[in-house]
Amino acid sequence: MAAAVSPMAPAGLPDLPAIAGVRLAARNCGLRYKGRPDLLVAVMDPGTTAAGVFTRSLTASAPVLWCREALAAGEGARVLVVNSGNSNAFTGKAGVASVERTVAQAAKAAKAKPAQVFVASTGTIGVPLEDGKITVHLDEMVAEASPDRWAEAARAIMTTDTYPKAATRTASIGGVKVTITGIAKGSGMIAPDMATMLAYVFTDAAIPQAVLQTLLAKGTEDSFNAITVDSDTSTSDTLMLFATGKAGNTAPASAGDASLRDFRRKLNDLLLDLAHQVVKDGEGATKFVRIDVAGAASKAAARRIGMAVANSPLVKTAIAGEDANWGRIVMAVGKSGEKADRDRLSIRIGGVQVALNGQVAEGYDEAPVNRHMKGHDIVIEVDVGVGRGKATVWTCDLTHGYIEINGAYRT
Amino acid sequence: MAAAVSPMAPAGLPDLPAIAGVRLAARNCGLRYKGRPDLLVAVMDPGTTAAGVFTRSLTASAPVLWCREALAAGEGARVLVVNSGNSNAFTGKAGVASVERTVAQAAKAAKAKPAQVFVASTGTIGVPLEDGKITVHLDEMVAEASPDRWAEAARAIMTTDTYPKAATRTASIGGVKVTITGIAKGSGMIAPDMATMLAYVFTDAAIPQAVLQTLLAKGTEDSFNAITVDSDTSTSDTLMLFATGKAGNTAPASAGDASLRDFRRKLNDLLLDLAHQVVKDGEGATKFVRIDVAGAASKAAARRIGMAVANSPLVKTAIAGEDANWGRIVMAVGKSGEKADRDRLSIRIGGVQVALNGQVAEGYDEAPVNRHMKGHDIVIEVDVGVGRGKATVWTCDLTHGYIEINGAYRT
Repeated sequence: MAAAVSPMAPAGLPDLPAIAGVRLAARNCGLRYKGRPDLLVAVMDPGTTAAGVFTRSLTASAPVLWCREALAAGEGARVLVVNSGNSNAFTGKAGVASVERTVAQAAKAAKAKPAQVFVASTGTIGVPLEDGKITVHLDEMVAEASPDRWAEAARAIMTTDTYPKAATRTASIGGVKVTITGIAKGSGMIAPDMATMLAYVFTDAAIPQAVLQTLLAKGTEDSFNAITVDSDTSTSDTLMLFATGKAGNTAPASAGDASLRDFRRKLNDLLLDLAHQVVKDGEGATKFVRIDVAGAASKAAARRIGMAVANSPLVKTAIAGEDANWGRIVMAVGKSGEKADRDRLSIRIGGVQVALNGQVAEGYDEAPVNRHMKGHDIVIEVDVGVGRGKATVWTCDLTHGYIEINGAYRT
Repeated sequence: MAAAVSPMAPAGLPDLPAIAGVRLAARNCGLRYKGRPDLLVAVMDPGTTAAGVFTRSLTASAPVLWCREALAAGEGARVLVVNSGNSNAFTGKAGVASVERTVAQAAKAAKAKPAQVFVASTGTIGVPLEDGKITVHLDEMVAEASPDRWAEAARAIMTTDTYPKAATRTASIGGVKVTITGIAKGSGMIAPDMATMLAYVFTDAAIPQAVLQTLLAKGTEDSFNAITVDSDTSTSDTLMLFATGKAGNTAPASAGDASLRDFRRKLNDLLLDLAHQVVKDGEGATKFVRIDVAGAASKAAARRIGMAVANSPLVKTAIAGEDANWGRIVMAVGKSGEKADRDRLSIRIGGVQVALNGQVAEGYDEAPVNRHMKGHDIVIEVDVGVGRGKATVWTCDLTHGYIEINGAYRT
């Protein structure tokens, strides 16, 4: 647990402005961690709408099941409660009861309906959650919540993350300035189909729930669903977007509304920023790897090829070893199951043509590629030569640090 | 490359009897390795039939493509040439020409047809193969080949393997004793759909090619296709079975022939033995892990669930850390995409009920499970509670050794 901060960590958190209608509180509740906040409460003003995208795991945790249900009720959002250290996953009926007690207490504290309360837990799977350690704080935390506690909020949801993750953007909706701010945590079990473990994004824009859901689902596609650390999918993966409406813009009628153009762009940019921060803090990561796939039969095929490369342990360990072992990239393309023309396959690493038409490029000079491999930002371009499908995915390398962290996480 | 011998290596090679009609030669040809054989030639008497199962990679190597073609020609087998150190994969037209030259020279040396020559190359991908270093030896190797060189043969095909792999069985076909002997090599890029990189099995039984192919394909299903080291699929994976017919049994008419009952059993047993040896020598492996899945919707579903558990980096690192972190098993079941009932899921580790009906088992005592985790043989049983599908898969743990070997393989 004493892993060094990722070499790719940003210099620090950006300035995170208040979002009108959102107040935050963070505390140490003693579930697992000492000397740092591990419980987050966000209180949102009445009228806040909510959207969510959740893990596709078939063994989803009790909090995830609750959030899906609450979202379907369509009552908006008033409180968010997140703890780190225990995921309340695979805890059976006891886990469901824990969620119910937490929701009931949070609703009471904020004078909200249960269906307006969202919860999440992240950490060890299969250990009953001592929810009393959470509920005992909720009255006070709802009361003490304030608009300026983003940095503590970002820290409260961390588990094996080596740095807190946040991003903020401003956008204009019909001439009205709105702000979007999000926090996220990784950092293992990051894979396609809801990659981040937890990310929460808040805006003061006025956006109806159905529109908000569409914006979030679309924005996830090329951000959180395009990253992978280790191919593992958490039982708790959650990405939520809350809109308080305090900015006073005219509510858009649909996700395609022309007034949303700038907001969509800024939201997608923020989601990608958070997703990249999660990858850069992948457990043990020392390299941030972008894989551009082109020439595939379709965009989906390109994505799958990219993910096959990104998830290949042999590719990931070669990158960790700063070895431009492009043969392993060929291997990974081949195992993706997607159409590729071996004799038209081309690969560039760090912008240098390494392979062309199915063999090593004529006059290939390894020196500049070796220099590229020594940096933190690795770029791999693959053209599989069969069509026009393109996709980009991001991953990190597989290092001794990953083994270290995950061979001793519980004990 | 100086990895210590796997702690799960057998005490040594078994006694490997001669197979009538098979002669072997091994030499160092200087392609990559020093002080050890890296070139194998097997010469088989006229009348030998052949069967093969190959990688499903869509970027298969030139030797694999050649073998598929030669097998389809149905001319039987006279010579097998295998080199280690360079896989001749993704080498374009030059790689195809290398295969053609090697085949032509081997055919000439053994007075055989080109379609009776099978070749394989294992090692680095994407580096042109200096086939001259191979062909220069072929005349002499065919001439010097002898029936008793199994140990050298098993060593000649090794790459990062830490020990040679071989197995032998005797069987009876219609009262006639026949012998089956096989050699194999791993040890990274081991995954479903042709798991081993290379395995060659020889028998003196008389078995027509079509029957031999069916026996091999069926035998692969629950052996080489049920193991995984790192989920990566090689471009060169090859499993071949040669039958010289010298034992003098009556040739069976079909794979279902009653006279083949004992042979089938022994062949399957030998294939499983070789597959297990490959897993136990998985790169960096310190644990041999059996995963029994029951209660799945079908056998195929059970296999996929088992593979999801076996390939999960988080499960594999927990096993390396001797941590009975069954929550990660739940996670892996959930990400398999196969139907599972979270609230009926049960898990046993080392025979101890850890989880039952979706939560930790009542009175669960971690002590005996922790003791089990410290051994080399780990047994995980998962019942997903939805049907009657069963499957077993085998894997190894993910350790610092894997990172070490693969972060510095080429350089």
